[in-house]
Amino acid sequence: MHRTHTCGEITAAHIGQEVTLSGWVANRRDHGGIIFIDLRDRYGITQMVFDPQDNETAWKIADTFRSEYVVKLTGKVRHRPDGQTNSNLVTGEIEIITLSAEILAESKTPPFEISDHTTANEEIRFKHRYLDLRRAKVLENVKFRAIMNHFTRNWFTAHWFTEVQTPIFTVSSPEGARDFLIPSRLHNGMFYALPQAPQQYKQLLMVWWIDKYFQIAPCFRDEDPRADRHSCEFYQIDCEMSFVEQEDIFQVAESFVKDLIPGISPEKHIRENKVYRFTHKQAKDLYGSDKPDVRFDLHFEDFTADFKDSGFSVFQGAVATGWVVKAMKLENVAMSRGEIDTITTLAQSHGAKWLAYIIYEAEGPRSPILKFFSPAEMKALEEKLSPKAGDMIFFGAGEYALVTKVLGAVRIALRDKYNLADRSELAFAWVTDFPMFERKPDGTIDFEHNPFSMPHGGAAAFDNPEPTEIYGMQYDLACNGYEILSGSIRNHDIKALIKAFNMVGKGEEEVKEKFGAVYNAFQYGVPPHGGFAFWFDRLLMILKDEENIREVYAFPKSGKAEDVMMNAPNRVDELQLKELWIEIRE
Amino acid sequence: MHRTHTCGEITAAHIGQEVTLSGWVANRRDHGGIIFIDLRDRYGITQMVFDPQDNETAWKIADTFRSEYVVKLTGKVRHRPDGQTNSNLVTGEIEIITLSAEILAESKTPPFEISDHTTANEEIRFKHRYLDLRRAKVLENVKFRAIMNHFTRNWFTAHWFTEVQTPIFTVSSPEGARDFLIPSRLHNGMFYALPQAPQQYKQLLMVWWIDKYFQIAPCFRDEDPRADRHSCEFYQIDCEMSFVEQEDIFQVAESFVKDLIPGISPEKHIRENKVYRFTHKQAKDLYGSDKPDVRFDLHFEDFTADFKDSGFSVFQGAVATGWVVKAMKLENVAMSRGEIDTITTLAQSHGAKWLAYIIYEAEGPRSPILKFFSPAEMKALEEKLSPKAGDMIFFGAGEYALVTKVLGAVRIALRDKYNLADRSELAFAWVTDFPMFERKPDGTIDFEHNPFSMPHGGAAAFDNPEPTEIYGMQYDLACNGYEILSGSIRNHDIKALIKAFNMVGKGEEEVKEKFGAVYNAFQYGVPPHGGFAFWFDRLLMILKDEENIREVYAFPKSGKAEDVMMNAPNRVDELQLKELWIEIRE
Repeated sequence: MHRTHTCGEITAAHIGQEVTLSGWVANRRDHGGIIFIDLRDRYGITQMVFDPQDNETAWKIADTFRSEYVVKLTGKVRHRPDGQTNSNLVTGEIEIITLSAEILAESKTPPFEISDHTTANEEIRFKHRYLDLRRAKVLENVKFRAIMNHFTRNWFTAHWFTEVQTPIFTVSSPEGARDFLIPSRLHNGMFYALPQAPQQYKQLLMVWWIDKYFQIAPCFRDEDPRADRHSCEFYQIDCEMSFVEQEDIFQVAESFVKDLIPGISPEKHIRENKVYRFTHKQAKDLYGSDKPDVRFDLHFEDFTADFKDSGFSVFQGAVATGWVVKAMKLENVAMSRGEIDTITTLAQSHGAKWLAYIIYEAEGPRSPILKFFSPAEMKALEEKLSPKAGDMIFFGAGEYALVTKVLGAVRIALRDKYNLADRSELAFAWVTDFPMFERKPDGTIDFEHNPFSMPHGGAAAFDNPEPTEIYGMQYDLACNGYEILSGSIRNHDIKALIKAFNMVGKGEEEVKEKFGAVYNAFQYGVPPHGGFAFWFDRLLMILKDEENIREVYAFPKSGKAEDVMMNAPNRVDELQLKELWIEIRE
Repeated sequence: MHRTHTCGEITAAHIGQEVTLSGWVANRRDHGGIIFIDLRDRYGITQMVFDPQDNETAWKIADTFRSEYVVKLTGKVRHRPDGQTNSNLVTGEIEIITLSAEILAESKTPPFEISDHTTANEEIRFKHRYLDLRRAKVLENVKFRAIMNHFTRNWFTAHWFTEVQTPIFTVSSPEGARDFLIPSRLHNGMFYALPQAPQQYKQLLMVWWIDKYFQIAPCFRDEDPRADRHSCEFYQIDCEMSFVEQEDIFQVAESFVKDLIPGISPEKHIRENKVYRFTHKQAKDLYGSDKPDVRFDLHFEDFTADFKDSGFSVFQGAVATGWVVKAMKLENVAMSRGEIDTITTLAQSHGAKWLAYIIYEAEGPRSPILKFFSPAEMKALEEKLSPKAGDMIFFGAGEYALVTKVLGAVRIALRDKYNLADRSELAFAWVTDFPMFERKPDGTIDFEHNPFSMPHGGAAAFDNPEPTEIYGMQYDLACNGYEILSGSIRNHDIKALIKAFNMVGKGEEEVKEKFGAVYNAFQYGVPPHGGFAFWFDRLLMILKDEENIREVYAFPKSGKAEDVMMNAPNRVDELQLKELWIEIRE
């Protein structure tokens, strides 16, 4: 037997008992010939005392202990001497006089300091992830993922959703991101693909009639890694429902987050305990983003009409071209010349020529462009933005897409610089009514988002002669500036679906060929349906205040899509390739 | 709104209410100008009545309904007329007078009969799996998987196991079955592999100190499909624990099954509510199998010593060669000549020359070989097998491996022919002490099973000059003749692990190179640990009385490892291959 107790459970109630503990040597102190060891395991720390007077053999063995050795110790529980108790520890009242000791495994000196304050770089930490995981923060993240998995599955199960595990070996899909491929040994020259999402399968489940489906689904996309996108594999809370409308789906997702946050992250709170709503257009208009961070205001006001006849030729010229003028007010800051330069540089990196601003001082507004503004223009600013002394106004003038993008980026930079957002707050916001089609520079029409969404107005919407005015029943959920959910009411009407493809110059044959299973299934009684996918890992990252999504995986891939601990990817034997009917291209 | 209620919840309590239901047309009957529709969804069936007197428009629409149409119906709930109630249905007391009707989706005639008694072959069923799933049995299997997942995760979580999702993109491992490979786009000429099991990761989790880990893990092996082995992907309940011995692990697995069976399959019971135990040798000796079905006796007795000097030259010769003579008694049957021929043919297909037997009739024993047996030999048979009139004895004589294999196969065939096993019974049996090494025909030594197991006797066992006498702390759990779990206490002592590899002529460099992550990790304080994997799908198959494992997946692969519904695997674009640095080998 390796232990009678863990290192986290012995208290004053055990005093006088003989116990056996196994764990890691966390810390060693020598005081007047007596050795003190902090013995640690996943559950806690227990103080072990080795006194040559009590047992010289054990004391001698303890003298050979080094950090991170795994040892098995037997001894008697006693009260710590007065003044040495530690009320922060469950085990802080007791210590154990060790009577026998055994080394179960030695340890070399770890290649980096195992502490939350480690300065080791990511590569060395990931190479020895089994040691990196011993840091409290990483342990916490891995445990939290388990808790979130558990909560999520219990929640959906309790709400009558049925978990279905959809295949991981499927077929390459022509839309979306790049697929990962798996060469088939049994079928020469053929390939499986890993699913980018179980989209087709979950729609087939609706044709079946499962009614409410969910799964914490592994998904695979061959995309380049990003801070909020793990390479190779990620997880989504995948969900689909029959006989629902958009509001029904919103209700499910909203109740889930309203239960989830107090359930697993009680230190966070949902802003106003509500979920905001914006159309895609409103989100762009107000925040320059389709995933706005609405923990803080700093929204844009439109001044296009106000500067139509401006003496400031930049604004007037923009309006004359059919472009826009927008502005936002930053409250109560005093930006230095250098800080303004920095934020201007940021705006320029997003394509702006320049960043116009006004500083409101006690003496009144100050700005190089002020002299061009008419009293009516100054009044418009005051009416829409109510600037006070200490505030600043930033402007953007130009093409709509550019202005919203630049001001959106400036807004986020200001958030980070001035801590405008409360880290303990979660601001959820629906972004709805995505345009279904875009007109490309050459005048042709293409899908802007998901071709499989039902448009607002139903199938009849496709009769609109102006495709860019057709909006999908498609929605994202934003949280603190991240997209954490995406979904839609699906177009279950096969004729309407073909109409949608016709609009981008594609025919029925294409739908049949590329989405054959769904095309066939929809012939046999398909219910109206819709659903969503929560980006599980990204939500986890937000809840654990991580800047990089890699930190929320037990064994992450690096920024180069490598597992540096396992050495993946790697070369393989020629024989393996031969069996799979492939060879490496020179 | 598509519905106010599902098709499974309206009862007499709703009488007089107006309700809206959506669902599939399951059945249509016309009686005296009135149309009756059974409207069905996942939750149940509701009888809808269309009377032209109540609403002619609805009646006219209903007249166009065909089987499997998806329709939305609004009407008033009323009592069924006397004599027409159906006490087998929740909704059997009521019917709904339909006042408005709408077709949500039409349906072509399904390509096969959607019923549990369908005669459609597997290919047509799997091609239209979304229709096949509408059969009650298949729905039941998919729902049961969700229930078993849920029960399992809750059980392990409640027992302080932490769920960790290990990577699906890993590196090709040189031992075990064939790996599936994924060519890397970012790393020219390199490949990821899908994990055959999270074995290395879970051992790394122990080095970390997670203490108790579990996961319902997707696993991937490029093996040819079998009735009890799904191709491409399968799931295991993966589990690992630190500071444990074999008994601790048995205790966890046994309590799990003892909670699982009454929890999710109350119609089944565990034989004697216990888990039997056999060493690998005993299982072979008694049942000729390392996964014995012990729901019924029919065990083998050894007669090698008894027939040492037999007048029956076949037996005597076998013993003289150093081989064995074994026999088993089948109670209370009367096999015809033809039946004996069939079973003999089966024995021959497993390598036997012939199948010797004795029939015990009321008049005494009868057999072509009886004349060669001495009274002492007959007495030995009587003492060890106590045959009574109506019983039969079958013999095997020859090499140990062959005799046990042949009699083992005959035993299972007799089980199936004479229904010796109770289908509602689950007989769990540990099979322990697997030999670690085998001597190959050329005299060299190789691993017989898992090289990473700790031997009985610990690291010192490797000092045994006869490697075939070293037994691993390795165990399987058998259930009704299937292997449903495999595990071991791992060899965590890196020096002993190298010793094990030395015994098969391999050196430290090989361990380092092929199992680098584990080799490195074991330098930094590895606790003693062990664990197991439950073959989730196979257990599910047993609990649902399915003969073929494919039936327990929502979307199964065919016997040729194909997804005939999605057309996977399939050809891919040349461009995709180019990006992945591979080409097809001619």
